[in-house]
Amino acid sequence: MKRLLYALLFVMVSVVANGQAKYVFYFIGDGMGVNQVNGTEMYNAEVQNGRIGIEPLTFAQFPVATVAATFSATNSVTDSAAGGTALATGSKTYNGAISVDQSKNPIVTIAEKAKRSGKKVGVTTSVSVDHATPASFYAHQPDRNMYYEIALDLPKANFDFYAGSGFLKPTTTFDKKEAPSIYPVFDKAGYTVARGYNDYKAKSSTAEKMILIQEEGAASDCLPYAIDRKEGDLTLAQITESAVDFLTKGKNKGFFLMVEGGKIDWACHGNDAATVFNEVNDMDQAVKVAYEFYKKHPKETLIVITADHETGGIVLGTGKYELNLKALQYQKHSADGLSNRISELRKSKGNKVTWEEMKTFLSEEMGFWSKLPISWEQERRLHDEFDKSFVKNKVVFAESMYSKSEPIAACAKEVINEIAWLVGLAADTPEAMSRYLPLAQVLNSSARRLTIRKLPNA
Amino acid sequence: MKRLLYALLFVMVSVVANGQAKYVFYFIGDGMGVNQVNGTEMYNAEVQNGRIGIEPLTFAQFPVATVAATFSATNSVTDSAAGGTALATGSKTYNGAISVDQSKNPIVTIAEKAKRSGKKVGVTTSVSVDHATPASFYAHQPDRNMYYEIALDLPKANFDFYAGSGFLKPTTTFDKKEAPSIYPVFDKAGYTVARGYNDYKAKSSTAEKMILIQEEGAASDCLPYAIDRKEGDLTLAQITESAVDFLTKGKNKGFFLMVEGGKIDWACHGNDAATVFNEVNDMDQAVKVAYEFYKKHPKETLIVITADHETGGIVLGTGKYELNLKALQYQKHSADGLSNRISELRKSKGNKVTWEEMKTFLSEEMGFWSKLPISWEQERRLHDEFDKSFVKNKVVFAESMYSKSEPIAACAKEVINEIAWLVGLAADTPEAMSRYLPLAQVLNSSARRLTIRKLPNA
Repeated sequence: MKRLLYALLFVMVSVVANGQAKYVFYFIGDGMGVNQVNGTEMYNAEVQNGRIGIEPLTFAQFPVATVAATFSATNSVTDSAAGGTALATGSKTYNGAISVDQSKNPIVTIAEKAKRSGKKVGVTTSVSVDHATPASFYAHQPDRNMYYEIALDLPKANFDFYAGSGFLKPTTTFDKKEAPSIYPVFDKAGYTVARGYNDYKAKSSTAEKMILIQEEGAASDCLPYAIDRKEGDLTLAQITESAVDFLTKGKNKGFFLMVEGGKIDWACHGNDAATVFNEVNDMDQAVKVAYEFYKKHPKETLIVITADHETGGIVLGTGKYELNLKALQYQKHSADGLSNRISELRKSKGNKVTWEEMKTFLSEEMGFWSKLPISWEQERRLHDEFDKSFVKNKVVFAESMYSKSEPIAACAKEVINEIAWLVGLAADTPEAMSRYLPLAQVLNSSARRLTIRKLPNA
Repeated sequence: MKRLLYALLFVMVSVVANGQAKYVFYFIGDGMGVNQVNGTEMYNAEVQNGRIGIEPLTFAQFPVATVAATFSATNSVTDSAAGGTALATGSKTYNGAISVDQSKNPIVTIAEKAKRSGKKVGVTTSVSVDHATPASFYAHQPDRNMYYEIALDLPKANFDFYAGSGFLKPTTTFDKKEAPSIYPVFDKAGYTVARGYNDYKAKSSTAEKMILIQEEGAASDCLPYAIDRKEGDLTLAQITESAVDFLTKGKNKGFFLMVEGGKIDWACHGNDAATVFNEVNDMDQAVKVAYEFYKKHPKETLIVITADHETGGIVLGTGKYELNLKALQYQKHSADGLSNRISELRKSKGNKVTWEEMKTFLSEEMGFWSKLPISWEQERRLHDEFDKSFVKNKVVFAESMYSKSEPIAACAKEVINEIAWLVGLAADTPEAMSRYLPLAQVLNSSARRLTIRKLPNA
């Protein structure tokens, strides 16, 4: 990691200090290891083209790539706070730290340096604005769970554009005391808060500084998974578009923009393969926005895609020398989404769901029986969960770090992973967490020299 | 993989054709994915320096790196035959094929091109010379198991230097018929066969073409694992030294040398982590030989390190945000080696081994109890295997692709992996096989342009 970080940071610092790249995009796929990326490309080839191989992601075609081991100052396996701090500052710290060192002193971030050098700065994510990875770019707090205090650091950093799902603790301090809402503080500091993409478009021209979050009523903790998305949901690509739009208006000395695909990690915590691959594709849609910008400003734009660590230990293949990733196309929702639908079904039927009804439901939602033959052993496991949950009425929710699932949903996810011949995923440990395969792909720089060279239009 | 292969092959072809690099080393870590490499570096840091982090391998410090998805023409997961063919020819083929296409027609290899262009050529490995990966560089056969026929292709290719453990079927054809020994054929074709490093040194000056294998009486299938090595055993570094020595004597138009670390894959098939990390380190010792050569000829030398696929789905971490790789230092032998010692113990005691004796044995060989506290549950599993195997005398050997283990040895290996907080490894499926994370690190070339540039001495 050290090598990777120094490498990346050197790129960034030299870029910012010497003005070699006017526009800098810094994408972080949270929990996105090599298998998350290669798996998505192989999934795309099977689903889009019905063939073995890869259908390349935009960012995986960028010319320079490397890999690294990631670890924090205190742990062989970093968390997203120490990982985010490393990516934002170049310094290793303890797990849980938000851009403070091991003595809890603040460390200046690359985003702060960019701001001081006169660039506009944006920090954006598909999860909450106060979550560990984005926070590491603008806040300095000893604990990643200090959401209220992190939010108060946002106007202090005085960046131009923030975006994400919302804020987790707008009125409650870390020591659980009620406190003044953060929103008037943002207002007083000159921030316009836009709720949703249309609201952004309506307010952007007159806003000096902007915070873009989801519409009133949406969850504050994250954007919906790409696989669960409904018409009108805010997307990471829209956030990236808005950020580019906002950061290039008026006097233009260039920008530094961090974009986090934060829910790759969440889906990996749940070992939810179809959802993982859709999230990686979704971040790639945001990268495409950057790439379109690059094509207009090829000599002035640097795009870095990296990851803070791997999550979930996803492994492709179970020893058969085969994959069957196309099976995952029949999974219509994330395991969370499936769980919600089962809960709705349970409610609508007053808990009286027959096995035949459940089979019809799972056929529609996961393709079981209708599209995907399942073994007797797999059917038995699904039936056992059904029996416990609907017949004996003992619902024990299956928990991972960011989700709680109806047991049938958790079982169905395991079964479809088995059908796709993915291993590791099937064994959903409560915190199957944080392996260390970040993938860094750097456009417009040489891995060795880290200087910005003129490249032909791609 | 396609991208990687085209990239690598382009490097190689342009190098050979235009004489940009006079000396080409092509290292293949069989089954060596990203976690095999990163895991070894983290293991080295813990064991050598008692700290979290990495102690870099020589080759991991080379300036250019990339990753790829590997798959064959017929399978999402390639085997070493199709993988070796891809690395040797740039063409994808069916699993099992040795440098023939899907219609079973021969495909010219990079090594053959190098030979035709006047270079000397060496093909070397830590397993048998007729195994899939080395065979892909000099032979053309429809099935990797045609060991006799593959060996007969060796003199036809007419390369200058071959090395490995030996030959698997020197007198038996693929259809199981007795046939004339391959050794007189080699002799007639002008090859000197050296048995062991000292024999090589005695014969090299007068030999025109050389085949270096292990001493009489050693196993023909592979060199011993590095972790099991005894004084006087032939090593991959010695093979590489011998190859460089042999290929540079006399008229010197340069060379192409392939070196395979073949038993990384074997140890991964057995999910034997300590043995895997020692094998990666051992291949790095061979890379060091190449690197010393590079330092003397920096403007004329290209060193490529790559892999054909990943094996075993090794995952670092079990969700605790910690690793404990230093525990593996107490494993004194490979699981195979441990199994042999248990068999010897069984024999020497006429099967009458007490649990106390077994505990003393496991304490000495694996550090259990004396160096590594083990849980009651782990002790119970070991005792259960002991009970079945020594008390009830039911020995069911645990099998993986390349090994058969005494059940206590297999269980002890699982326990030490658990103590090291490695996952995937603990679940030893009989063929936990062939995932697809090859790591390619290229010295002396740019990943983007693939031209050979002048580099400063490193």
